[in-house]
Amino acid sequence: MKRRTRTPTPNFGEIRALPVLGIRDVFEGDSIGDLIVDALALGGLRLHEGDIVVVKHKIVSKAEGRTVALDGVKPSAGAKGFAHKNGVDARVVELAMREAKNIVRKKRVLITETQHGLVCANSGVDLSNVDGGQTAVLLPVDPDRSAARIHRQLKKRTGLHIPVIIADSFGRPWREGLCEVAIGVAGMKVIHDYRGQRDPYGYRMHATEEAVADELACVAGLVCGKDSRIPACIIRGYPYRRGNGSAKQIVRPAEKDLFR
Amino acid sequence: MKRRTRTPTPNFGEIRALPVLGIRDVFEGDSIGDLIVDALALGGLRLHEGDIVVVKHKIVSKAEGRTVALDGVKPSAGAKGFAHKNGVDARVVELAMREAKNIVRKKRVLITETQHGLVCANSGVDLSNVDGGQTAVLLPVDPDRSAARIHRQLKKRTGLHIPVIIADSFGRPWREGLCEVAIGVAGMKVIHDYRGQRDPYGYRMHATEEAVADELACVAGLVCGKDSRIPACIIRGYPYRRGNGSAKQIVRPAEKDLFR
Repeated sequence: MKRRTRTPTPNFGEIRALPVLGIRDVFEGDSIGDLIVDALALGGLRLHEGDIVVVKHKIVSKAEGRTVALDGVKPSAGAKGFAHKNGVDARVVELAMREAKNIVRKKRVLITETQHGLVCANSGVDLSNVDGGQTAVLLPVDPDRSAARIHRQLKKRTGLHIPVIIADSFGRPWREGLCEVAIGVAGMKVIHDYRGQRDPYGYRMHATEEAVADELACVAGLVCGKDSRIPACIIRGYPYRRGNGSAKQIVRPAEKDLFR
Repeated sequence: MKRRTRTPTPNFGEIRALPVLGIRDVFEGDSIGDLIVDALALGGLRLHEGDIVVVKHKIVSKAEGRTVALDGVKPSAGAKGFAHKNGVDARVVELAMREAKNIVRKKRVLITETQHGLVCANSGVDLSNVDGGQTAVLLPVDPDRSAARIHRQLKKRTGLHIPVIIADSFGRPWREGLCEVAIGVAGMKVIHDYRGQRDPYGYRMHATEEAVADELACVAGLVCGKDSRIPACIIRGYPYRRGNGSAKQIVRPAEKDLFR
């Protein structure tokens, strides 16, 4: 198949976000890349050069077997205590503690730093969109690697270089509501660095690094929703920059974090 | 003019984001709504029912005269000390302090809580995309009111109900890079509240409130960029919910903030 290495250049044109409809329930061992290509084909669609695929992390975790039946989880005394005090499920607290590298906050909900360095509620452990509350889904062990795998699957099926972003929705300080963030990335740069570049008025920008992978994840939040069985979307027309980007590059080291 | 009160319903279809090209430099007293409608018309485009307009805050501030010539700013001793220690412009630090309600962090850059309750670097005071570094732009005094004004201007010109989001790019804890956030909103709900609703598997969601206004702002980050004189975009196809939404509703009160 023809290999194109050209990086799309900025066109300042329209960006389109298309939901991938008709993806069936996902089970351990499934190829997410194949499911996406097949679902698109059923709808008469196909990937184009320049497209980005954003996948909600839940189907990735399911495909990788990162699910835990709550029945089999024995909460520790600490998890039980916290759960009792705050009216939450001790088994979820237990899983969140096991998945955590650090506990960041312990007010009502556990805010943890995961093994990946992500800071979020309950280490990303979640019961929604699985099976009605019997089974918890954990984050993928290495979401960058998961994204790279899907990227390769898409390449194999289409011959195209399609960047892949794996998204989850996180709360954040100071602001209400969740926003999607990129927890795994393959095939593109995650930060658009304007530093040193001059704006149209000749001013040299020095603090402008845009977290485009997170902004692209947010587009998936808008297109996919939470209640519609749409676990992936295509973003078409965004002039991404090719590169070995990784979601780890968006995790800010504590010593660099002016907000911490 | 015909008034339509129907709230668009979810269609799970495509979302399109179109840059508004050809907006000229903005000066105090300009009508942002008129500039947008005129720029669209020049490009053969017009607003449709269901569209959302996202405007980068800088042109709003310019239209409202929220600019300060740095030459005339006399920094306090405190501002000078901080600026000297950190190699930044004392006049910008001075303006940031004047615009702040609280200083949140003081490592290298001032992180402040603005009068609006927004937490960001330098109280949002910025020199880029103005005039090459002579003039600072402050945030609008009341960005929700600014959004409402643009919303009315668009209504007057088009007869349509067009929600308006005013966006700025903020840094955040734990993650690298800036993302756009909604600092002013008119004509739509800012949070999509899934709480109490069942997912397709029958599980009742209880922690899912999505900050859709921020996610829509992020789309503008992708479409508008920082160096292309594109200060606004149209988002078409997103099934927003009508309502008296306000960016203040996205500001999380300290006592509710599990992350703080």
